Amino acid sequence: MMSHCLDINPEPTDLEQILSDCRETLKYCVKTGHPHFFNQLSTGIDVIGMAGTWLAASANTNMFTYEVAPVFTLMEEVIFTHMRNLIGWQDVDAIFVPGGALSNLYGVLLARHHAMPEVKRAGLSGDKRPVVFTSEQSHFSIKRAAAILGIGTDNVVFVRCLGNGKMDLQDLHEKLRASQQAGAVPIMINATCGTTVLGAFDPLPELADLCEQYGIWLHLDAAWGGGALLTRDYKYLFQGIERADSITWNPHKMMGVPLQCSAFLTKHKGLMKMCNGMGATYLFQTDKHYDVSYDTGDMSIQCGRHNDVLKLWLMWKAKGDLGFEEQISKNFQLAAYFRDKVKERAGFHLVLDKIEAPNVCFWYLPPSWRTRAIEKVKHAHLHEVAPLVKAKMMESGGLMVQYQPLGDLPNLFRVAVSNPSLTTRDLDYILEEIDHLGKEIPLPPDWDDETLRDNRH
Amino acid sequence: MMSHCLDINPEPTDLEQILSDCRETLKYCVKTGHPHFFNQLSTGIDVIGMAGTWLAASANTNMFTYEVAPVFTLMEEVIFTHMRNLIGWQDVDAIFVPGGALSNLYGVLLARHHAMPEVKRAGLSGDKRPVVFTSEQSHFSIKRAAAILGIGTDNVVFVRCLGNGKMDLQDLHEKLRASQQAGAVPIMINATCGTTVLGAFDPLPELADLCEQYGIWLHLDAAWGGGALLTRDYKYLFQGIERADSITWNPHKMMGVPLQCSAFLTKHKGLMKMCNGMGATYLFQTDKHYDVSYDTGDMSIQCGRHNDVLKLWLMWKAKGDLGFEEQISKNFQLAAYFRDKVKERAGFHLVLDKIEAPNVCFWYLPPSWRTRAIEKVKHAHLHEVAPLVKAKMMESGGLMVQYQPLGDLPNLFRVAVSNPSLTTRDLDYILEEIDHLGKEIPLPPDWDDETLRDNRH
Repeated sequence: MMSHCLDINPEPTDLEQILSDCRETLKYCVKTGHPHFFNQLSTGIDVIGMAGTWLAASANTNMFTYEVAPVFTLMEEVIFTHMRNLIGWQDVDAIFVPGGALSNLYGVLLARHHAMPEVKRAGLSGDKRPVVFTSEQSHFSIKRAAAILGIGTDNVVFVRCLGNGKMDLQDLHEKLRASQQAGAVPIMINATCGTTVLGAFDPLPELADLCEQYGIWLHLDAAWGGGALLTRDYKYLFQGIERADSITWNPHKMMGVPLQCSAFLTKHKGLMKMCNGMGATYLFQTDKHYDVSYDTGDMSIQCGRHNDVLKLWLMWKAKGDLGFEEQISKNFQLAAYFRDKVKERAGFHLVLDKIEAPNVCFWYLPPSWRTRAIEKVKHAHLHEVAPLVKAKMMESGGLMVQYQPLGDLPNLFRVAVSNPSLTTRDLDYILEEIDHLGKEIPLPPDWDDETLRDNRH
Repeated sequence: MMSHCLDINPEPTDLEQILSDCRETLKYCVKTGHPHFFNQLSTGIDVIGMAGTWLAASANTNMFTYEVAPVFTLMEEVIFTHMRNLIGWQDVDAIFVPGGALSNLYGVLLARHHAMPEVKRAGLSGDKRPVVFTSEQSHFSIKRAAAILGIGTDNVVFVRCLGNGKMDLQDLHEKLRASQQAGAVPIMINATCGTTVLGAFDPLPELADLCEQYGIWLHLDAAWGGGALLTRDYKYLFQGIERADSITWNPHKMMGVPLQCSAFLTKHKGLMKMCNGMGATYLFQTDKHYDVSYDTGDMSIQCGRHNDVLKLWLMWKAKGDLGFEEQISKNFQLAAYFRDKVKERAGFHLVLDKIEAPNVCFWYLPPSWRTRAIEKVKHAHLHEVAPLVKAKMMESGGLMVQYQPLGDLPNLFRVAVSNPSLTTRDLDYILEEIDHLGKEIPLPPDWDDETLRDNRH
């Protein structure tokens, strides 16, 4: 389909052509539901979830008030109470948000409001310089939230990570102290529960202790990891979660709910409305003849809000907690299977042996490169391999796996398991296919000049 | 359906029960597509648009990169180029946003970045106090954006409106001057093109002149009015639009596209990426083997982004510009019809005779109240009527019309025409039904103590 076929014209198009356009669109779009699509953390397609999306589209409901969204507002309450119980809080305020980045923005915004409530009215005056702490492997949305909220990216302190992707507590200690000594006001620590690349979990009990000590907000970015709370075998990763002040949890990732479905939750009931409420009289009339405490709109940074709850509610109802537990546990088991396969196979090299979230990261060495141990391959060379393989992957179209650098580490592949229809055969295929696509990649011209450098892995 | 039926259980629910739940959900949810639903600016249901939503759900695409969303990224480019042409700009950067409130936040954010680019990095220091100007009848999302962005609601200057709902230029002049004299830094004027209640258009040419004079950003909140750009008869309302720096335009309102579909556009190509870009290497790899300038994710304040373009593209393709022109012109014609009916009918009193957007606002006097001219009814009494009628409306379930106060004016009803399936009979029904629901409302106990007050209308 060429770009000019997409053009909009003054005249209407007939139904025949529209149907053909629909077919073409589906033909050329990336098959994110296919078990060989691993490019993102949201993969697969759940039939009940899709039905929920279709139903929500038919109802076409805007979520700002109980008046227009009575059933869906109650569904939200049921879901959030259920999530609260899984977390272990006494109280909850929560909202569905268009994506984890904005959920994390809510976290930083509430932390700012908690530390400096006058900012809502007076703005940031420079009297206090708020500072946010997060790991260098945390999601970029924390940094961007600081930019948006007027805190500034210079006031995001990136804490070093250990080799396993977890926050280095020693480094955090020092940076907190240094920040206070420099006259800044630490307002929050963001802990990641399932980092984007390695899938690491930051140490919650220790971070909660520190937050208590400094009297600051603990936000959890569990966008990816959140689903593990539903499993008996993997919820240990969340030990200490009940001490968090706020949490980002995206059911559209590990739970396989269709896009978009991201929840932001806080245990500080009433704070979201204090932070975001504007009391617009045209929408939130307090003289309505029903209980307006059900109106959720004034807690939100949006006005109109899409119905993201129905698909999740239907899926949860259909599967039950036990169904979700089974589905999510399988992700972890398959990831462990794949980790072992990568470890065994010639030319593939694990970045981490011990995985937490179902992320498996690895480097690939083409056959002619294997005369040298991977530790002796120059980073600059290894860095070129993944983009070359990815380019061939996109040409041949049989597989889609994400690659990225990570700190000092050269480009690495990440396979994250979230598609419920995945089998071990699909995972075996990844290795076969990458080996197939990469087999002809020649040695770099300066291969023989290779000298051992400071290669960390 | 009672709240405990909504509960989530450990065990799965069978398909029979799920289907029954779906039926119950549809039964109890508000019929926003019904021609007697006037509660919000988004009404009606377009079949092609709904098909687009269903198709997008099946594709389940996340819009951050060209790599995963090639077709939909090109569709966005086609749509935004088309919108740019309607606006009359040479260049455009644009993005679909989850709702008009966040689109307006983009407007204030870009204005802040334009005036104070160092804030992204350093945060707001208090050296300069940025101030935003908007009318007292503009949408509350401008004020909330100032709270979120660290500007503070105290630094939003509300400009008085004239009786017709348009910004009072004299008042704006004085407040701009006073603000500068107080040492503040005006950074933007927000002009509303179709206010939420009255549907008024602020005077763009004069506001553009002022923005030029002060060297500040002109943002247009055309969330509601935007669709009128597609009509030959009503686009005169947008005279001067090409001088705006940024525009919010919600196709999910006047164009009848299913929720959500809101566009934010700016003529400053490249500025969105400068403002919001974080260059996250795990997602926006610059060593990808294709033209990464198609990647839209780093312009956005989101990370993952829902596919909101397909439904709009399909509808635009199906209708053509001419089809949209006809649909939207009809909204204006029906609103004029309804305005005339309100004017003629006993007990109904127009707030504004001359309407711009298809909004008709009115007060209702129950029969026993009509011995007195509306000008002589105490505001406090008139204020009670709409909530009483609305309560009966919600009980009987045959009609849904929004009411709200407006500045000093008592609660008034607003009928906004956006449902393409509307006929004059549906509009006649509103008056019949309100008269029916309100006919028994008794005189207030202190009716006879009534003394003439300063009633503006």
